[in-house]
Amino acid sequence: MALVDPDRLFPVETGLRGLTRALYESVADLPIISPHGHCDPQWFAENKRFPNPAELFVIPDHYVFRMLVSQGVPLTDLGVPRVDGGPTETDPRLIWKRFAEHYYLLRGTPSAMWLNHSFEHVFGLDVPLSAETADMYYDHIDAKLAQDDFRPRALFDRFKIEALATTEGALDDLKWHRQIRESGWQGRVITTYRPDAVVDPEFEGFADNVAELGAITGEDTATWDGYLNAHRARRAYFKEFGATASDHGHATARTEDLSAADANALFQKALKGTCTADEADAFRGHMLTEMARMSLEDGLTLQIHPGARRNHSAPVFAAHGRDKGFDIPGRTDYVGALRPLLDAVGMERDLTVILFTLDETTYGRELAPMAGAYPALRLGPPWWFFDSYEGIRKFREATTETCGFYNTAGFNDDTRAFCSIPARHDVARRSDCAYLATLVATGRLREDEAFEVAQDLTYRLAKEAYRL
Amino acid sequence: MALVDPDRLFPVETGLRGLTRALYESVADLPIISPHGHCDPQWFAENKRFPNPAELFVIPDHYVFRMLVSQGVPLTDLGVPRVDGGPTETDPRLIWKRFAEHYYLLRGTPSAMWLNHSFEHVFGLDVPLSAETADMYYDHIDAKLAQDDFRPRALFDRFKIEALATTEGALDDLKWHRQIRESGWQGRVITTYRPDAVVDPEFEGFADNVAELGAITGEDTATWDGYLNAHRARRAYFKEFGATASDHGHATARTEDLSAADANALFQKALKGTCTADEADAFRGHMLTEMARMSLEDGLTLQIHPGARRNHSAPVFAAHGRDKGFDIPGRTDYVGALRPLLDAVGMERDLTVILFTLDETTYGRELAPMAGAYPALRLGPPWWFFDSYEGIRKFREATTETCGFYNTAGFNDDTRAFCSIPARHDVARRSDCAYLATLVATGRLREDEAFEVAQDLTYRLAKEAYRL
Amino acid sequence: MALVDPDRLFPVETGLRGLTRALYESVADLPIISPHGHCDPQWFAENKRFPNPAELFVIPDHYVFRMLVSQGVPLTDLGVPRVDGGPTETDPRLIWKRFAEHYYLLRGTPSAMWLNHSFEHVFGLDVPLSAETADMYYDHIDAKLAQDDFRPRALFDRFKIEALATTEGALDDLKWHRQIRESGWQGRVITTYRPDAVVDPEFEGFADNVAELGAITGEDTATWDGYLNAHRARRAYFKEFGATASDHGHATARTEDLSAADANALFQKALKGTCTADEADAFRGHMLTEMARMSLEDGLTLQIHPGARRNHSAPVFAAHGRDKGFDIPGRTDYVGALRPLLDAVGMERDLTVILFTLDETTYGRELAPMAGAYPALRLGPPWWFFDSYEGIRKFREATTETCGFYNTAGFNDDTRAFCSIPARHDVARRSDCAYLATLVATGRLREDEAFEVAQDLTYRLAKEAYRL
Repeated sequence: MALVDPDRLFPVETGLRGLTRALYESVADLPIISPHGHCDPQWFAENKRFPNPAELFVIPDHYVFRMLVSQGVPLTDLGVPRVDGGPTETDPRLIWKRFAEHYYLLRGTPSAMWLNHSFEHVFGLDVPLSAETADMYYDHIDAKLAQDDFRPRALFDRFKIEALATTEGALDDLKWHRQIRESGWQGRVITTYRPDAVVDPEFEGFADNVAELGAITGEDTATWDGYLNAHRARRAYFKEFGATASDHGHATARTEDLSAADANALFQKALKGTCTADEADAFRGHMLTEMARMSLEDGLTLQIHPGARRNHSAPVFAAHGRDKGFDIPGRTDYVGALRPLLDAVGMERDLTVILFTLDETTYGRELAPMAGAYPALRLGPPWWFFDSYEGIRKFREATTETCGFYNTAGFNDDTRAFCSIPARHDVARRSDCAYLATLVATGRLREDEAFEVAQDLTYRLAKEAYRL
Repeated sequence: MALVDPDRLFPVETGLRGLTRALYESVADLPIISPHGHCDPQWFAENKRFPNPAELFVIPDHYVFRMLVSQGVPLTDLGVPRVDGGPTETDPRLIWKRFAEHYYLLRGTPSAMWLNHSFEHVFGLDVPLSAETADMYYDHIDAKLAQDDFRPRALFDRFKIEALATTEGALDDLKWHRQIRESGWQGRVITTYRPDAVVDPEFEGFADNVAELGAITGEDTATWDGYLNAHRARRAYFKEFGATASDHGHATARTEDLSAADANALFQKALKGTCTADEADAFRGHMLTEMARMSLEDGLTLQIHPGARRNHSAPVFAAHGRDKGFDIPGRTDYVGALRPLLDAVGMERDLTVILFTLDETTYGRELAPMAGAYPALRLGPPWWFFDSYEGIRKFREATTETCGFYNTAGFNDDTRAFCSIPARHDVARRSDCAYLATLVATGRLREDEAFEVAQDLTYRLAKEAYRL
Repeated sequence: MALVDPDRLFPVETGLRGLTRALYESVADLPIISPHGHCDPQWFAENKRFPNPAELFVIPDHYVFRMLVSQGVPLTDLGVPRVDGGPTETDPRLIWKRFAEHYYLLRGTPSAMWLNHSFEHVFGLDVPLSAETADMYYDHIDAKLAQDDFRPRALFDRFKIEALATTEGALDDLKWHRQIRESGWQGRVITTYRPDAVVDPEFEGFADNVAELGAITGEDTATWDGYLNAHRARRAYFKEFGATASDHGHATARTEDLSAADANALFQKALKGTCTADEADAFRGHMLTEMARMSLEDGLTLQIHPGARRNHSAPVFAAHGRDKGFDIPGRTDYVGALRPLLDAVGMERDLTVILFTLDETTYGRELAPMAGAYPALRLGPPWWFFDSYEGIRKFREATTETCGFYNTAGFNDDTRAFCSIPARHDVARRSDCAYLATLVATGRLREDEAFEVAQDLTYRLAKEAYRL
């Protein structure tokens, strides 16, 4: 018995299913381009074994453990660390069993499909995970993890990853990336410039962070020009370790294009910690435009990931910190918010700004009309909660008619769950092929076009958008 | 000729249709759990015959008569009562004929499907309703209504209703519920605690209502503590008549968690009628949190039904009063609005808060992410305009991937149209089975899981969420 | 080889496709009712040949050239005129070749389907447009355009257009419409009253425009009464040239119903140019209610087209002016915005107000509930970016269950691309028939009803809503 249906996510009508399968087979074995994600570069630098099934699949994956929490399982029962260092479950087998008992909660979710895909295709399991099979699963996976061909670099090769981007803060020394490079290993693991800590006046320790940015770069970051130059220097440093993009995760998509004097005035306030909430937001928004201008200089692609209301639960944040499944999307405006940036650099052909959203209502109403007009804009793939069959279907149905395929940026997985990477790209390939086959079967695309677009969506557009 | 297709709402592809039918057949005959609605308990207390077809199907059902109004039929031509007691049509046969002549306006709506289902399955009719068949229909239905087996209790049994909740205001004496209990009839008709009139400072006669609440309970409701205790007393009284839930129909989902001093200050203003609109809104929002805390004490499930802009037409409200088809949904925010309540009690495993919405954009963006994290939250079924095939399809497609099936609360019909209850539950069962079959056929769910989930969605989840 | 699939946009399942085809064949040859659009009446007045393929298909069509611009082709390379009269490409063959080279960018868009339809059905081409076929296409189309049977009036007849509405400003002398009438040609080309320049205080030259309105009509437009009478006079003048509707393209759907004194006070401020932005918005909103009242007098249907953020790119607007593909939809509220107008005239059976939207989230949440209650309201077809297969599907799925078919207003093409008219109506007919067939196959509509509704959606509802 197979855990995953070989024809999963294909349309059910026979003819349509056949065409979808043909399209899928033409792209199924293409290498994986993973231009945005949160894998830990330390894995590939050290190439140690993954410790155990619970630490591989449960404890770090907030997609997974939040679902158990939502049904009353305490975070500490699942080994999620506490901010105060207080007790949390440490027995990985016990955590795994709790996970297995509640695995049915994930029915119908992409997490279930990714996990089943990993269980079968990475670990060779073929019975469903449940309370009954929990121990067998644990023993089986744990034994595999002890093998050399289940170490990070071996899996990287087995997953056919052509390029994998991680994400590091602007102050990171990139030592793991350095170690990867110096190791002589040929896997292409690159970094991404994520400067939130030094562009967001509300980030903890903002002034100290900016001072550290100065110390690292030798620039006087107490001045506006020195601060901008320090960014240029760090971007150049990140480029040495392969970076082809920066990334920005603001609560809104607000941009500003202030005069140097106004920007500096906000910057000085930010350093003193006297910004109002609105001024902090304006400063963040202005820095997006500065980053876009630097992108025109150094060629980094600019990614904007707005709209998450982070750490929605105050008690959970106090007890367990950030990234614990309590980030909730909110309504996001792009039309007014991006106008300052677009008036400044939106018509530049040599700039690539990739927009993401957690608000599906903006696909057809705002994002596709803008991406279908401004040369600098591309649409990122469905993100986070929408990285799924339905998410991809709705994205294509809502954007293609207005901005076509060529203003989208291929797929990226945005994950810290390493084993889910092939599964996620597989879901995207299947979902895109299902969409393309439907267009062909309903006379909206010729068959030869569909095969070409399938290649583009799977491989070429991501390479182009991220300049890989 | 049948009025309703035995395979209605099933997917058309043969294999998929077969699996849907199999799933449907496994749940089609399960008892009906109707944990939220607006049937009149007097029907079951007195068990008199329903007066005539027009009063059964047209006059009280704003789903139906608003469609005729929208095409120019005056409300008074349909017998809708006037606030001033002025003339309105009183001949039920004439009202019925007007309804029949315009019945084509309902094509493609769930009302048409519910009505056709009732006509065929409850009354045994098998030709379409039209101007030509109006009299025949009237005579046929009227004759049936005269039979004992068409009285409310007989239909209740015939519909296989295991539990039916009505909704009563906090000041209601529940005399009909008492009469039902004292009658010895075994039908489980229970009440629901709906305290709008005594928690909304803008409700007509708020101060008088609060005073009456004091008189009924023996509490000094001029004080904050007395007021809260009076709620506790009424909730206990409602529980005596079977209540397992409270219900709250605010214009927004705003919650607050004020200090006792601040809450009391607003309460005193509210009693004096000096609240600003924003203060009234804050008080309502705070009372949701108080109700949630009381739910932790007494176990009542808390239902929040926000987002209707009631009585949108001033002239219609002036002429005919509330619930006349002129309630229009509006954009609703949940992410910021629910945060105070969730910070207070959202992580409680012993609390159930069921969220409803009239804004479908919130399913995937806000509601599913929150329900997929907070233990206290469950999502109510598609409500009102979205209690339909498309509504259910969109709900499942937008929520399942993020919060799964087990953070939803089964189906409820929310109706005052008694004969539509089996039809509405049937539509929900068919729509859910169509969705489940699609998941199976596309490799997103195993077949054995689908049969189990079908049981859960039809029966178990509603019983659990409402503690029935 | 055909460019367009004869079964395009039909569902793929065999039985469903057969029923869709049968429905489509019953309406495919009905005359075209085009009650709202932007064709140039000069074409039909003069009946000159269309100059060349580039000026027919590329230069004036912002749906098309914006897609090339979004991928880095400068507007001037496509011959789009500059505001400063500076250089822009003038060689139509070169523009056509650039268009052909980039034609693949339109894959999956309705523009591609409309263009392919025109290429095959109007010009008899049967190979795809590409860089290779660009010259052949150019020569072929250009030769056809030189033939008498490709002149505007001949195409009008060939397209089987029963009535075509153009749109003219309130100050337009309608000389082309006069010339058409005096020519003796029998084609029904009518005008539409579009008073933006004289109702929007923020329109360039508002005060001068109002003065000119006075000069044209002989009314003293410095007074409120004279201003309203001047509108009445112009509306009567437009009716002489066939107008059956007015049209209003505001940024929001805001309406107001001010006292005459308050309206006049705003009007005097507007004439002096001293309105705040909010006052200008209030004045525009009040004028919608005034227009609705005049509609009750003279029978013109009122169209509201809100929600476009026009000229989103300041640099493009400065270089090339308006209507250059940089109009971006925004979130639009209807529930609160329309209430003043609806309280004033919403229950009138003799008024028709047609609502359009660029915000699909409002279909089910706001527009369908309102249209399903107010006698004066009808919903216009999916507009602009949503004039497409997916747009029509989502519109029907989101509105039918709540307001049925009979509160919608049929299809209109809203285009200035003449050759696309038959293609657009064909897409609408196919999409509606696919929807109707799906309802029949899933037991939501009887087959005889579907054939009747197909006629209504294609022909009757547009004629009724626009009183044609």
